[in-house]
Amino acid sequence: VDNFSWLNAFKEMGTRVRDSVLDMIGSDRAGEKIGEGASGDTTSAVDKVAEDAIVSVLNEASSAGETFKFISEELGERDFGGGELVIIADPIDGSNNAKTGMPYFSTSVALASGSRIADVTLGYIINISTGEEFWAVKGEGAFRNGVRLGLAKSARTGMMSFECRNLSRDLPPAMSVMSSFRKVRLMGSIALDLAYLASGSTDLVYVASPSRSFDFAAGWLLVKEAGGVITDMEGSPLDEIPLGLTRTIPILAAADNDIHSRALKAMKAA
Amino acid sequence: VDNFSWLNAFKEMGTRVRDSVLDMIGSDRAGEKIGEGASGDTTSAVDKVAEDAIVSVLNEASSAGETFKFISEELGERDFGGGELVIIADPIDGSNNAKTGMPYFSTSVALASGSRIADVTLGYIINISTGEEFWAVKGEGAFRNGVRLGLAKSARTGMMSFECRNLSRDLPPAMSVMSSFRKVRLMGSIALDLAYLASGSTDLVYVASPSRSFDFAAGWLLVKEAGGVITDMEGSPLDEIPLGLTRTIPILAAADNDIHSRALKAMKAA
Repeated sequence: VDNFSWLNAFKEMGTRVRDSVLDMIGSDRAGEKIGEGASGDTTSAVDKVAEDAIVSVLNEASSAGETFKFISEELGERDFGGGELVIIADPIDGSNNAKTGMPYFSTSVALASGSRIADVTLGYIINISTGEEFWAVKGEGAFRNGVRLGLAKSARTGMMSFECRNLSRDLPPAMSVMSSFRKVRLMGSIALDLAYLASGSTDLVYVASPSRSFDFAAGWLLVKEAGGVITDMEGSPLDEIPLGLTRTIPILAAADNDIHSRALKAMKAA
Repeated sequence: VDNFSWLNAFKEMGTRVRDSVLDMIGSDRAGEKIGEGASGDTTSAVDKVAEDAIVSVLNEASSAGETFKFISEELGERDFGGGELVIIADPIDGSNNAKTGMPYFSTSVALASGSRIADVTLGYIINISTGEEFWAVKGEGAFRNGVRLGLAKSARTGMMSFECRNLSRDLPPAMSVMSSFRKVRLMGSIALDLAYLASGSTDLVYVASPSRSFDFAAGWLLVKEAGGVITDMEGSPLDEIPLGLTRTIPILAAADNDIHSRALKAMKAA
């Protein structure tokens, strides 16, 4: 797998998504319902326009002779000539923010040599509002705008990110973890939360609701390559999670083992 | 008061703050403690650099013959030749985000013909990460990047913003309000929360902890000029709040009267 030539393709996707969606963010048009995505969520215009931008790059890669399978939130699975290679994308992670104009949403794309999270070799996330790019190449490190990220060297911030689908249900059990952090953020994009954790902005990401692998495939590699920890709520690795469209498990990611164990312990005590 | 010539000065402040702080966001340097601000919070390098950028514009206005009093989070009060005019600023609203690199923080500046919130005639807020500019001129409307905002025409999004200083204390009493919203955001900048409410991105802003007038002076005018409602937690206007450095009251702002009354009612029932 040529991770570096795919990285260029992923950056091109980021550029095209930004170019095609920035003008519609927060407008009625962005939120226009145009069907139901393969993953079961409603597809809005902004999701579809972003996915089309990604597919336009994939069509070019395919014409140039690349073969792969594409898995994406809206269109589901599409075969581009077969083979083992998988590209999995969330065209817009944080659709509610993109539709309403809250500036925290992203495109997340990952490349894998097989069908499980452990097979991911390249992850790319772009903050569409700011243009910040985050990527990780297996064995080569994690980067933000080209600058290498390293959590081992970072000062801890005392901030954590929390995400959930149902606040009344998911918040009370999380309070024991939250109360040990100085600041809690609830921003609305799991992929970006993981990117900013990998960047040292937060110390913990707690996703209380079952997530889809297209939400966290790229972020999983970013966190690991930056030196962080990412598991399910039992502390087990995500390696065997299939790359696909179904909701699988809640996620706990941390800047280091110590923060991760303390959060697991607080959860169990609650 | 020449609101429009001051608007140009405020935009120049926004440009200079962005130019001076963008490179340090999320770095150790940004969070370097360099003293205690006049408002009692710790002053970090990013706060000081942003305030200096604002003061550089004010020095030029003063040299050109303008007279006013300046109130700001770090330096406190400074007299520029006396008179009734007050300029009140939060150089960085959302300092924790700016220090750690979470992309949601702003500069907020307001102009007033006297010493109370009701005297504010111009409000300006810039999202430093994205460059989005929000402003309102009393009697002339509210704008985002020059486009007029009007909440009367907006579709409601079912999203609300929440801010507080102590989650364990402030969150439980807010659950009754939160549970009636589809999505809750906890982003970390009161000024930006009010700007995005005025833009129709959210329907409600609930600030549970007492806020300082430099946090909400500009947002207050934005929300009102966009057609929204902004009060304390009793539903009383903020008009008589003095422009100054002390923590005064929690805030409840809404896209319309109906949403505002429902939130007040849910609070009282809790």
